[in-house]
Amino acid sequence: MKEYVFRDPVHGDIAVQDPTIIQLINAPEFQRLRRIRQLGTSFISYPGAEHTRFAHSIGVYHLMKRVLDHLLAREPGLLDPETRVLAMAAALLHDIGHGPFSHLFEKLTGMNHEEWVVRILTDPGTEVNRVLRERHPTWPEAAAALVSGRWEGPPFVAELLSSQLDVDRMDYLLRDSLMCGVSYGRYDLERLLSTLTVYPGPRGPELMVAAKGQGAVEAFLLARYFMYWNVYFHKATRAVEMLLEKLLQRVLDLLQAGDEEVLAGVSPALVPVLRRETPSLDQYLSLDEVDVLAAIKVWAQSRDPVLADLARRFLHRRLFKGVRLTSPPGPALWERLLERVAAAGFNPPEYYLGVDRTENVAYSYYYLPPEQGHRHPIRILDTAGGRPRIEEISRRSRVLAGITEPVTRYVLFLPKEVADEVMPLLEPQLLFDL
Amino acid sequence: MKEYVFRDPVHGDIAVQDPTIIQLINAPEFQRLRRIRQLGTSFISYPGAEHTRFAHSIGVYHLMKRVLDHLLAREPGLLDPETRVLAMAAALLHDIGHGPFSHLFEKLTGMNHEEWVVRILTDPGTEVNRVLRERHPTWPEAAAALVSGRWEGPPFVAELLSSQLDVDRMDYLLRDSLMCGVSYGRYDLERLLSTLTVYPGPRGPELMVAAKGQGAVEAFLLARYFMYWNVYFHKATRAVEMLLEKLLQRVLDLLQAGDEEVLAGVSPALVPVLRRETPSLDQYLSLDEVDVLAAIKVWAQSRDPVLADLARRFLHRRLFKGVRLTSPPGPALWERLLERVAAAGFNPPEYYLGVDRTENVAYSYYYLPPEQGHRHPIRILDTAGGRPRIEEISRRSRVLAGITEPVTRYVLFLPKEVADEVMPLLEPQLLFDL
Amino acid sequence: MKEYVFRDPVHGDIAVQDPTIIQLINAPEFQRLRRIRQLGTSFISYPGAEHTRFAHSIGVYHLMKRVLDHLLAREPGLLDPETRVLAMAAALLHDIGHGPFSHLFEKLTGMNHEEWVVRILTDPGTEVNRVLRERHPTWPEAAAALVSGRWEGPPFVAELLSSQLDVDRMDYLLRDSLMCGVSYGRYDLERLLSTLTVYPGPRGPELMVAAKGQGAVEAFLLARYFMYWNVYFHKATRAVEMLLEKLLQRVLDLLQAGDEEVLAGVSPALVPVLRRETPSLDQYLSLDEVDVLAAIKVWAQSRDPVLADLARRFLHRRLFKGVRLTSPPGPALWERLLERVAAAGFNPPEYYLGVDRTENVAYSYYYLPPEQGHRHPIRILDTAGGRPRIEEISRRSRVLAGITEPVTRYVLFLPKEVADEVMPLLEPQLLFDL
Amino acid sequence: MKEYVFRDPVHGDIAVQDPTIIQLINAPEFQRLRRIRQLGTSFISYPGAEHTRFAHSIGVYHLMKRVLDHLLAREPGLLDPETRVLAMAAALLHDIGHGPFSHLFEKLTGMNHEEWVVRILTDPGTEVNRVLRERHPTWPEAAAALVSGRWEGPPFVAELLSSQLDVDRMDYLLRDSLMCGVSYGRYDLERLLSTLTVYPGPRGPELMVAAKGQGAVEAFLLARYFMYWNVYFHKATRAVEMLLEKLLQRVLDLLQAGDEEVLAGVSPALVPVLRRETPSLDQYLSLDEVDVLAAIKVWAQSRDPVLADLARRFLHRRLFKGVRLTSPPGPALWERLLERVAAAGFNPPEYYLGVDRTENVAYSYYYLPPEQGHRHPIRILDTAGGRPRIEEISRRSRVLAGITEPVTRYVLFLPKEVADEVMPLLEPQLLFDL
Repeated sequence: MKEYVFRDPVHGDIAVQDPTIIQLINAPEFQRLRRIRQLGTSFISYPGAEHTRFAHSIGVYHLMKRVLDHLLAREPGLLDPETRVLAMAAALLHDIGHGPFSHLFEKLTGMNHEEWVVRILTDPGTEVNRVLRERHPTWPEAAAALVSGRWEGPPFVAELLSSQLDVDRMDYLLRDSLMCGVSYGRYDLERLLSTLTVYPGPRGPELMVAAKGQGAVEAFLLARYFMYWNVYFHKATRAVEMLLEKLLQRVLDLLQAGDEEVLAGVSPALVPVLRRETPSLDQYLSLDEVDVLAAIKVWAQSRDPVLADLARRFLHRRLFKGVRLTSPPGPALWERLLERVAAAGFNPPEYYLGVDRTENVAYSYYYLPPEQGHRHPIRILDTAGGRPRIEEISRRSRVLAGITEPVTRYVLFLPKEVADEVMPLLEPQLLFDL
Repeated sequence: MKEYVFRDPVHGDIAVQDPTIIQLINAPEFQRLRRIRQLGTSFISYPGAEHTRFAHSIGVYHLMKRVLDHLLAREPGLLDPETRVLAMAAALLHDIGHGPFSHLFEKLTGMNHEEWVVRILTDPGTEVNRVLRERHPTWPEAAAALVSGRWEGPPFVAELLSSQLDVDRMDYLLRDSLMCGVSYGRYDLERLLSTLTVYPGPRGPELMVAAKGQGAVEAFLLARYFMYWNVYFHKATRAVEMLLEKLLQRVLDLLQAGDEEVLAGVSPALVPVLRRETPSLDQYLSLDEVDVLAAIKVWAQSRDPVLADLARRFLHRRLFKGVRLTSPPGPALWERLLERVAAAGFNPPEYYLGVDRTENVAYSYYYLPPEQGHRHPIRILDTAGGRPRIEEISRRSRVLAGITEPVTRYVLFLPKEVADEVMPLLEPQLLFDL
Repeated sequence: MKEYVFRDPVHGDIAVQDPTIIQLINAPEFQRLRRIRQLGTSFISYPGAEHTRFAHSIGVYHLMKRVLDHLLAREPGLLDPETRVLAMAAALLHDIGHGPFSHLFEKLTGMNHEEWVVRILTDPGTEVNRVLRERHPTWPEAAAALVSGRWEGPPFVAELLSSQLDVDRMDYLLRDSLMCGVSYGRYDLERLLSTLTVYPGPRGPELMVAAKGQGAVEAFLLARYFMYWNVYFHKATRAVEMLLEKLLQRVLDLLQAGDEEVLAGVSPALVPVLRRETPSLDQYLSLDEVDVLAAIKVWAQSRDPVLADLARRFLHRRLFKGVRLTSPPGPALWERLLERVAAAGFNPPEYYLGVDRTENVAYSYYYLPPEQGHRHPIRILDTAGGRPRIEEISRRSRVLAGITEPVTRYVLFLPKEVADEVMPLLEPQLLFDL
Repeated sequence: MKEYVFRDPVHGDIAVQDPTIIQLINAPEFQRLRRIRQLGTSFISYPGAEHTRFAHSIGVYHLMKRVLDHLLAREPGLLDPETRVLAMAAALLHDIGHGPFSHLFEKLTGMNHEEWVVRILTDPGTEVNRVLRERHPTWPEAAAALVSGRWEGPPFVAELLSSQLDVDRMDYLLRDSLMCGVSYGRYDLERLLSTLTVYPGPRGPELMVAAKGQGAVEAFLLARYFMYWNVYFHKATRAVEMLLEKLLQRVLDLLQAGDEEVLAGVSPALVPVLRRETPSLDQYLSLDEVDVLAAIKVWAQSRDPVLADLARRFLHRRLFKGVRLTSPPGPALWERLLERVAAAGFNPPEYYLGVDRTENVAYSYYYLPPEQGHRHPIRILDTAGGRPRIEEISRRSRVLAGITEPVTRYVLFLPKEVADEVMPLLEPQLLFDL
């Protein structure tokens, strides 16, 4: 038996035996994920956060395998062997549509990574499509259905792949936590896995947690809450994001103004994106963070002083300062801020001033459809007293009650050099906080 | 420089250099803590929970030293060198008044471990008193004042020793969590330590947490919440506690009825306690868990069938079954329960039926005086914007808001053999849960 | 499906499902292991080392289950399901013959724990015998054969239970290392487990390690080497051992001289042992460390000054000083040492002077039969190049070559008070080292 | 006090307070290390091994600080405060001369990273030079002397920076081990640090290890041994290295043959290197792994089929197969191998066939000067018996005796497709092993 063993900082040895899974890992579309970081620009605030979507995807595959094998050990007929492998393949491939610095590129270009994943899986020209198709003609569509929330097989499989208790989150909380050198995202994975179970629903078995797993789920949801507010929305990370956004905006604006020089030395794969054209599948698949970083290095030498300044700020980590506000600035305040920034020599001021809005719900107790984020409430299966009862977890948990409301945060970013001066303007809506 | 190094499962190497601290550790009153488990009867549900108050006390000493050294590195004049050692000594000795299976013994005998600690520190006949006295004549009283909340020196020292953010909790959460094989009690100790700070108050510097430590404190308080409800109040542990209570009650009752045979083979140190006499200091100090366990082994051979049965249940782990109730049973129901238990052959039924009431507040945002548990609210010192502001932490934290109310739980314990039969009687106040 | 879950500091959750295993764990003979420490007197030098043979035995069971399930996943017919459970039962029970402070008691009394385990398993009066017998009439004998090295079934099962690569060592290295707060005994358990394999031999499948596991085995054997010389043979631990030996010797001598008072207050189970009579099975099974510690507390109040002094030294940790020698002292030197010790007021001096000899071979590359310690050489199965080749591991490993010779160490123990004075006498054979 | 806190996966929070150190970290020359991986091409075999020289350098700084603070706590006058900061700065900057895929580039270009570090530190045009110079005019030279082994201050400082027991190794063993998901490189850092000490030598205090640290040093040296043979020399990693070497060789050869097209789309910083010209300091400092990876992506589209094939093999991880040999192939065998590879369609065969020679000494007990790798023997300071004695560690350690000889390994790499066919040719010098 031929097997691949990946040695993983989070899960230890990950052995891959199924030949289809091995072929999918070797496909160029999947190898490309080696060149896309899991946390985009976070590596600038957390020097350890260089881990890639490649490593994360292998981890997600591994957890899907572990959960299914745990469930199958207790109920051998729960899933047929081929669907088990299909679920593992979908877990492996769930992030294959991501581009470099994903959320930012989605924002700038309007390209959605969920659409790309479906396209990559179902286009007959890709290697992953070929491998899936050779296992079974229906697999490309089936994997796409699983990844995009349109799956009609046993519901627990789709919930494991995408829900508030999915293997994606299970992996990324531990991985991001380890790599960022923080402990916010740690929870008891072994305990959580061992208390997952299923219960019959109208469309087949649904995912549940046994009552003795309540503590483990609470800790898991709190881990996510802590990671959002302490790491993912870390002010320095958002400052880098803002910088990169302004930098790319400058490139787009220069191009729109007819300055083609900005494309010199930039890799061909990046060109259509910068021109706001929809890239072909081939172009998209040849695009990764190397292209973006190489372009930024080129732009640092640009004759456009704004572009060169923003690129150098990125490369040498000279970030904007962030000031937390209670609400976004209104038009009048915005005008005055632009004036001050311009007066301090940052021109045009639009590239040096921005408001970052972040929002998160740590746990949502009501259902949201796939297009709003696949939020299934987490349900506890309590068999005490001999009669199985199912309860949505926040009804049983004091500690979760506090985190089911969305939290929104506004941060104004601007050059350090003007910060002191504009503080008085901001005073009325200034928020002092963590 | 002579130093002792303790190698500790929680903190790694703990080096002790101060000669007074070394002498205190070598004192018989402190060595006795080797024979008193940190978690009393929890070892029966958690086979790893054999750790002692000796190891915990060394850990508390170590954390006090680390916190003080961290604060002194930033503000060298904060504490004079002698008071630093005194605080470390008080941390080391804070549990020296505990007897075997502490809470149980306190309940049965009315002896309070906090009174004993003061007595042990201030009685001129003890070795710890002698060692403290030789360092400075005022130290026995000063250490007692610190341990019992009557300290009039810098408030932050007393808060570090006994508050909702004290080194006692910092140690026991990590230690109990590790030894019980769970992860509920883990939090980021290093982060928490590095964000502790002080701020001037009316009576001297008070303990604060820098704003960037908010996440670490939240996780610390949640760790305690999880440990209480998942470990310390674990149903099996409470069942053992109940069993031991019933067993000792049987001994006391037999003695009161004049059956002196129950004392045969029991160690002399245990006799006054069983006779409900107040032991002398010497007697108290010679008492530890060896005496209790040896007595239970003797009682397992008793001619009294109830005593022998209860002792064997303890030794061989045949526990009562616990049923959670919404409220304690009223007198009528209690009578009917006693009848059923008696009818099933468990006589007298009082030894086979009990209600366990547990209550905990994970975090209390208002002040409670020493005699009610030294609850100081935890305060965040926020220096953002240049002006220091102090806020009680739950005002800034959504997640803590959910856990500031006391939670009470009632569990009825009875022999497994009668459980099924009495279930219908309990139905109206039955609670299904973890 | 009813299951027990043990939460273990070393392995996390250990789930037990087989009803026979659950019944064995509940048997009084097994519950007794809760009162016998894994490392005897080491808790005095390592405050965390309070862990019991009960917790270790559950860990050994768990590892046997993991290894067998790993091997069976690759070769389903390797073992029939009943033999799998038998092997797990034998792993669980392998230490059931141990008495309190095992090696010391074996030395003093000539009672061998390996004989007791066979007796406990095969005597029809024990609960473990009843449980095994009810699963299958042949199981008591089969389990005894496995534990004592007389097993005639598939050799790899016996090797897993008792060899230089057995599940006993795998558990105790990690457990002792964690509890002692050291890292000497750590190795990569997951890697080691995943590279275990079997290969056909004349009497059935034998245990091998796949070539890619060589590094993991090297680290495992080095872990044991480091634990022996740094922890198990730690000078302070040996000093406690020596103290306990002298103390018990004093009791035996007083008894032989007719002083029956020394038995007053001592538990009945201990009496035959102290009288050097062979205890009955019932007496042996009622004996644990509680009896010994309770007796030492009694002896600390003895009217015999030597006994009282030695007992108090043990309770309050006033240890002998150890001096390393190149060879044991000859008769002339011994006489002079006794004189000096006596002259310093330690009388009779025999109770205050002792030589400790420790010897260990980290790895033995040749076979030793069960009665000499079941040493099977560890063999690597190399399938590179398509042709399986088997090699004894030290032939492939430079680093192991250095540790295949036995090492012997001599330490002279004597009261601290005389140490300086006798140093010049020892000079010629003094060894300076760790 | 302004401070930076880096959150590190290996060491937790790393606080930086000294303003010079903060400025050095912010210097573009240091920020550039974010774009150079610590382990070059290992990320291809170990998906977690994406960690950078930036993170490693911060770790080395941190360990230097910890060791110096430990030594200064015991001997406050050991080092003046400014030299302490200088040593920390040198630790931070020790790797600043590295280029992308360092060892490979050194090999291809003859540029030595140790020369570049001296140049970067001492050239008045760099930011790090400016920052050092502003602290003290002598610092650029002093830091260069420390890093390059020409330091004439207290010897222990230089030994801490570069020896067989230096903070560089202490960091990289733990970091590489964690990131590669293996446990080979773990050792007890806390124990090791706490046993470091100094002893007067002819030129000032020299680095020693206290006798009780012997076990920790042995484990540290073994960790390095294991990392070399299991990770750093992992066959797949060497295969990637070989592939990259062949790929770059092809580029150099094409250029030498006048094919300038190969430079199209390649970043300007890379051009002089490929032309085998010595880059200017500015060019060198603008070069990082982004340039190399971007070029490989360009070359994957090259019209030269060999270059395109090799580049795609690198990007999609289609590696050469490695076969271990007892000695390098002689000229006759080499010819026949070339023929076979060519016959299988890999032309010119020189780009598809290579021999990798790796050599390592785990520990060298004799002194080697800086230019041969700064090997200082590690010395134990034994104070037992009151008289300090110094011994080279391998004289006291059986386990180290086995690993003081150099080990050399030869691996032949060739396309998988020809491997089976050429096996018979290799037979006489084939070595079967890990």
